[in-house]
Amino acid sequence: MNLGEIGEFGFIDRISRGLVTRPDGIVCGIGDDCAVTHGAGSRLRLLTTDLLIERVHFLLSAITFRQLGAKALAVSLSDIAAMGGTPLDAYVSLAVPGGVAVEQLDELYAGLREMASRFTVNVLGGDTTGSKGDLVINVALTGEVEEEHILYRGGARPGDTLYVSGFLGDSVAGLDAVVNGRASQDATAAELARRHHEPQPHVHEARTIAATGLAHAMIDVSDGLASDLPHVCDRSQVGAEVYEESLPLSPELLAYAARHGLSPHALALSGGEDYVLLLAGDARLREAAGGAGVTLFPIGQVLDAGRRELVRRDGTRVPLARGGWDHFPSDT
Amino acid sequence: MNLGEIGEFGFIDRISRGLVTRPDGIVCGIGDDCAVTHGAGSRLRLLTTDLLIERVHFLLSAITFRQLGAKALAVSLSDIAAMGGTPLDAYVSLAVPGGVAVEQLDELYAGLREMASRFTVNVLGGDTTGSKGDLVINVALTGEVEEEHILYRGGARPGDTLYVSGFLGDSVAGLDAVVNGRASQDATAAELARRHHEPQPHVHEARTIAATGLAHAMIDVSDGLASDLPHVCDRSQVGAEVYEESLPLSPELLAYAARHGLSPHALALSGGEDYVLLLAGDARLREAAGGAGVTLFPIGQVLDAGRRELVRRDGTRVPLARGGWDHFPSDT
Repeated sequence: MNLGEIGEFGFIDRISRGLVTRPDGIVCGIGDDCAVTHGAGSRLRLLTTDLLIERVHFLLSAITFRQLGAKALAVSLSDIAAMGGTPLDAYVSLAVPGGVAVEQLDELYAGLREMASRFTVNVLGGDTTGSKGDLVINVALTGEVEEEHILYRGGARPGDTLYVSGFLGDSVAGLDAVVNGRASQDATAAELARRHHEPQPHVHEARTIAATGLAHAMIDVSDGLASDLPHVCDRSQVGAEVYEESLPLSPELLAYAARHGLSPHALALSGGEDYVLLLAGDARLREAAGGAGVTLFPIGQVLDAGRRELVRRDGTRVPLARGGWDHFPSDT
Repeated sequence: MNLGEIGEFGFIDRISRGLVTRPDGIVCGIGDDCAVTHGAGSRLRLLTTDLLIERVHFLLSAITFRQLGAKALAVSLSDIAAMGGTPLDAYVSLAVPGGVAVEQLDELYAGLREMASRFTVNVLGGDTTGSKGDLVINVALTGEVEEEHILYRGGARPGDTLYVSGFLGDSVAGLDAVVNGRASQDATAAELARRHHEPQPHVHEARTIAATGLAHAMIDVSDGLASDLPHVCDRSQVGAEVYEESLPLSPELLAYAARHGLSPHALALSGGEDYVLLLAGDARLREAAGGAGVTLFPIGQVLDAGRRELVRRDGTRVPLARGGWDHFPSDT
């Protein structure tokens, strides 16, 4: 059997049985953006790990080493943010093919150091080795969060409003520009490609949201809204409806999509790697967050379990297809 | 400049500046077997991460998936052991090429689960993705150790005895058997290949050694004695002499080396991946550890800084050449 037949999440279900043999102190293992364990006092400890592989997650012909170093950390920072946490210490494993120069790795570490410094994260260790093929980076990142502020995927309640913390679809449009050789053709495409290569994790936004006490569930949009929202629904045992007309679309996405005959709403629904936050919470949350300087976009409602629908702009309803990014697409 | 020109440790020196921007609570960053941070009470928290890459660290034609899963965790367990610590929770990142079947990954996880279960380690998370080339596994592993029991590389004192906790050279002899197609030729070669593919981390041995209070410095022998001892000397600012005739050699290594015209002592000095412990401590340590069921082999003495010598069997002295395993050998 091939991984494509069961998919990334089918595989995770398959292997995740029997992996916790010492449950003391374990709050949450596999199944959320971070693992959660008891820390000192009322603090919970978070840990996430993300693996980036050349030709799967990035092309060295398109991304700079500086961008790559920053992005490798940013994707893990986004997982800490998704729990409402504060990032602490990173551990970087790197496998380097023979053709990569030390000066390029200096650039990679410069990008990593800048991103770490912005979020007061230490790099405390790692592993460096050779590779006979692709460049590989794994970042393991610890964090912490107060027990009263942690946000799991599983806390959404019927009646909650669904929000996202930023534009959707920019990253996949930027990827489209890169793979179709358009990234340097015009300023719009270049800007979208830059957003794809330089994701900005919403760590401060997440802390602000968690501090309001009005959010009930959170996840980061890494695989695409249509793939990440079902994780919240599954863990919360709820349904949801998303309003197509409410999806926040950047001017750049609208311009790029118009020029190249793409649906900006389809990109916003299924495109991955925007690394904004998706959350469910009280109807007063938008105002509370806004008062603290964080913009939230309401995009839908949490329903009782059962229906998961997209309300299209013409008022028709269609099932919300799980169309996000799966690392083992079954058609390849 | 190529990584081969500065080597793995030159590269680590180069990139490790400016990586700690929030020193509070950080006991030790890059430079030992694990990073060390303050935990609850008098406990210190440990974290190590190890990256295994196909064709660099293993050949899928030689190692079974079950062995690979166990080994990926074992090498990190050995790092926790090297600090005198107890392992806690593992996070497994896996990049899987298209040709690998789900059933093979089941085997990999079976091996991982067995190793985790033996040491009461949880697997709490990870990341699973595709690969266009090699299979990649990264394990991040947390642990803890009492402040009074932690053992760093930097604690060795002139006059200390140097010990190892098991045979040296078996793993590299097993690798030699594998790459020369001898692993299935006879029982001795098969057993050495098995030791190469199934390293046994000395976690219980390390805890026993740490509890004696008679050890001053410890490291695991992952890159080879001739490479790992200099780390202890550098961090402790001491010299050392190693007695060639005292190196513990297994009957299998002696038989294999005799049959194939190899020097068992050279293999024991420079061969990597034995994952035994190298430690410096009080002359009474061997007896104290032995009383608790742990066999230590005295192999040398710690000297004042300056001399690092091998005392050959004929009594002559030669500089202890740093001949261990560097992941970027300059001659490739």
